[in-house]
Amino acid sequence: MAQDITEALNRIFSTDSEIYRGRGFMHRLGFGERPALLNIDLANAWTRPGSPFVCDEMDVIIPSVQRLLGAARSKGIPVIYTTTAYGVVDGPHTDMGVWHHKIPALAELKLGTDAVAIDERVAPEPGEQVIVKKRASAFHGTYLSSFLCAHGVDTLIVTGVTMAGCTRHTVEDAIAEGFRPIVVRECVGDRVPGVVDWNLFDIDAKFGDVEPLDTVLDYLKNVASFAERPTGAVQASVTTGGSL
Amino acid sequence: MAQDITEALNRIFSTDSEIYRGRGFMHRLGFGERPALLNIDLANAWTRPGSPFVCDEMDVIIPSVQRLLGAARSKGIPVIYTTTAYGVVDGPHTDMGVWHHKIPALAELKLGTDAVAIDERVAPEPGEQVIVKKRASAFHGTYLSSFLCAHGVDTLIVTGVTMAGCTRHTVEDAIAEGFRPIVVRECVGDRVPGVVDWNLFDIDAKFGDVEPLDTVLDYLKNVASFAERPTGAVQASVTTGGSL
Amino acid sequence: MAQDITEALNRIFSTDSEIYRGRGFMHRLGFGERPALLNIDLANAWTRPGSPFVCDEMDVIIPSVQRLLGAARSKGIPVIYTTTAYGVVDGPHTDMGVWHHKIPALAELKLGTDAVAIDERVAPEPGEQVIVKKRASAFHGTYLSSFLCAHGVDTLIVTGVTMAGCTRHTVEDAIAEGFRPIVVRECVGDRVPGVVDWNLFDIDAKFGDVEPLDTVLDYLKNVASFAERPTGAVQASVTTGGSL
Amino acid sequence: MAQDITEALNRIFSTDSEIYRGRGFMHRLGFGERPALLNIDLANAWTRPGSPFVCDEMDVIIPSVQRLLGAARSKGIPVIYTTTAYGVVDGPHTDMGVWHHKIPALAELKLGTDAVAIDERVAPEPGEQVIVKKRASAFHGTYLSSFLCAHGVDTLIVTGVTMAGCTRHTVEDAIAEGFRPIVVRECVGDRVPGVVDWNLFDIDAKFGDVEPLDTVLDYLKNVASFAERPTGAVQASVTTGGSL
Repeated sequence: MAQDITEALNRIFSTDSEIYRGRGFMHRLGFGERPALLNIDLANAWTRPGSPFVCDEMDVIIPSVQRLLGAARSKGIPVIYTTTAYGVVDGPHTDMGVWHHKIPALAELKLGTDAVAIDERVAPEPGEQVIVKKRASAFHGTYLSSFLCAHGVDTLIVTGVTMAGCTRHTVEDAIAEGFRPIVVRECVGDRVPGVVDWNLFDIDAKFGDVEPLDTVLDYLKNVASFAERPTGAVQASVTTGGSL
Repeated sequence: MAQDITEALNRIFSTDSEIYRGRGFMHRLGFGERPALLNIDLANAWTRPGSPFVCDEMDVIIPSVQRLLGAARSKGIPVIYTTTAYGVVDGPHTDMGVWHHKIPALAELKLGTDAVAIDERVAPEPGEQVIVKKRASAFHGTYLSSFLCAHGVDTLIVTGVTMAGCTRHTVEDAIAEGFRPIVVRECVGDRVPGVVDWNLFDIDAKFGDVEPLDTVLDYLKNVASFAERPTGAVQASVTTGGSL
Repeated sequence: MAQDITEALNRIFSTDSEIYRGRGFMHRLGFGERPALLNIDLANAWTRPGSPFVCDEMDVIIPSVQRLLGAARSKGIPVIYTTTAYGVVDGPHTDMGVWHHKIPALAELKLGTDAVAIDERVAPEPGEQVIVKKRASAFHGTYLSSFLCAHGVDTLIVTGVTMAGCTRHTVEDAIAEGFRPIVVRECVGDRVPGVVDWNLFDIDAKFGDVEPLDTVLDYLKNVASFAERPTGAVQASVTTGGSL
Repeated sequence: MAQDITEALNRIFSTDSEIYRGRGFMHRLGFGERPALLNIDLANAWTRPGSPFVCDEMDVIIPSVQRLLGAARSKGIPVIYTTTAYGVVDGPHTDMGVWHHKIPALAELKLGTDAVAIDERVAPEPGEQVIVKKRASAFHGTYLSSFLCAHGVDTLIVTGVTMAGCTRHTVEDAIAEGFRPIVVRECVGDRVPGVVDWNLFDIDAKFGDVEPLDTVLDYLKNVASFAERPTGAVQASVTTGGSL
């Protein structure tokens, strides 16, 4: 981004931050005790050249996500991926809803193609969820919320693209559902100048904490290993159906 | 089902219906103008012998669903299937949530196996949605609601299994979302005696209309062919972003 | 309920239970460590004579719920109530959706009337949630799920009416979302013969544990007092926005 | 906003628009045939001086919303309001979820106070919905989606505040659910410089159409009056329960 535009944005952020802080916004959520790691749309259409969806800064994002994956896996923390893909790309039966009227390029994201497969450099391991979503948010029309809720997750570490689209909507939904979203600064991107910065600014003001990779790695180093949620000491009656 | 039990159930239904009708329950929803057809869990684990999930009456259900499919397809009506399948079947990362504590047999429903594939006798055609769900309801944690809503569907014709589980929960969710659920009597089943009858009774009293196959076929014969929802005559400004 | 009908139902339940157990259904969910108490539609229309919605067995249900409330409050456990009420009861702007076509009596449940106020005998205390819902399930179209999720609740103790309608749909949604539903036998009811029994049977087979009041009171006596969910030991960076 | 900052933002928007259009983004959704009007958080805390939530440009927003209300009401189009309000503002039972950790000022939005009542200048009329929400999006944890879906709405005309918070999240959810969101340029606002512009830019690129008030008034003038959704010509069997 040109130097003058960066400076203009920083001037706005500085003014706006002062107003927000004076009014009781922009505090820290902080981390909880049971995190999960969510990687949004790190599939080939977004991570590799040649598609209308490709994003910038992959030479920073990919290695940063690799480090996070290593840290999360060493603690047994749930790792979830999303991709966006469609089975029917035209007519009154399409699973694109009405979204393709806004973004006709969505029709290129066909289920089962290499474009929508997760990039091998950050490939999922067995036992990790890959959720196919139809909309921007990783929560919308998916089992993500009930997956996290069932396992007592309280903190959602978020990476991926795009910042102005899927990543932002996911963060908004995450805090709405009751999870603490932590956006990892080096692990998010987009495809047009400026939008990463202003969307991170909005999120940090209202919806989630934006943190540098090192802070998140520190947290993961110190957090307890993830284990199955305990069952209460007092148990239910053992005779199945006896209460009937 | 033994004759005396059928008679006992019919006596209950008769008494209960009288109370319901006297109190303003049990009316007809009626059909709307834009139906979709939803086939719940007609996958091999439920339709063919050898699995703990197998259901009764498949010799009636399968041919009845075949007739419905023919009628729906001839009118271009959206056809949707569900199956229930899991990627991780134990530990703190399972996508079974906490449901497997109630039903350990769920662990047999592995993603990608023949057990969870739709029965070939009622196979989906290209352009039809097959939704993999994790819970009983076809709506829970899936894009079904937004798919139907985007296409202006007002009526959901429901088939499949099991009546006391997935089919009932789906019907309850359907009317909650704002669709008119029509359960096709010959197209639903279960695996233990009595539960089809009493769940149909509850549904017909409160959540959806239970109709014989012939009535639904008549309706499909007369309904208008399904077409893309129209766009309004008055159009938005053509200069993209001009309003900014 | 007549003796012969009770016997007929028990014969069915006995046969069905054997099949379910042989196939890996009908296990115990068990209690978790962070319960909440949910009281469904214990408002005057359902608890006092004179409305089409009134239910039976209130002389058992009300005192049983009173005991539960005492036990839950003594441990600081979240207590939530629902009622069902509408602001607009006819025309194309009604908040009844399409449900009133099935149950025209819904039009009697007007927002702000005494009919939809919680029964004083089990009145909410300050600090307890009273959720106004529009559909059967306490989860549908409400903030219940995100409320429970944000507070790390893992177990939902359920009371109220009606068993074939709101209570059942709520239990199905509860386990779908990832909570363990525990239905308290003495605290649920309905308005027509038989339906409490068969819906409890279905739930105990597939969706939640049905437990006697004494078991649940024992559990609440021994469970830890409910406290705010902890924040992780490793904290986020303190300089707000520093990561931008 | 200072002249140089406006110019800097416009330079970014111009560059970014070119990229988006080249890649198949930023098309027009267009209007549908059955609109509803949604007014987000036009309650006193946001519209009148003295609260940390107050927004700018109310001298433009309020009269513009008044004109929209007149146009919508004359066609019988559903009008919905939201406000954000809480019953419990601290401790482990709060209905603020975890959001107040980010925005402690939320604790000022108490249920039943004048602060959260809709501004009298744009007051709801009898028969219009006022939805109390707990999160940013008007859809999250509310019956909005099922209300719209049940009435066959296909287009959501959106006004209100704040653009970077509740309005944006609502628009994202609206298109995700399958509705066409139309944001009325003169009817939205926020409380810090720049954020209205960049959030409208993001929305117009990906999630909804941003249109001037005159275009929307023209549309409402020409759209058909809103009427109850029709029931299909072929009716269901008249004998209730006859299919059982």
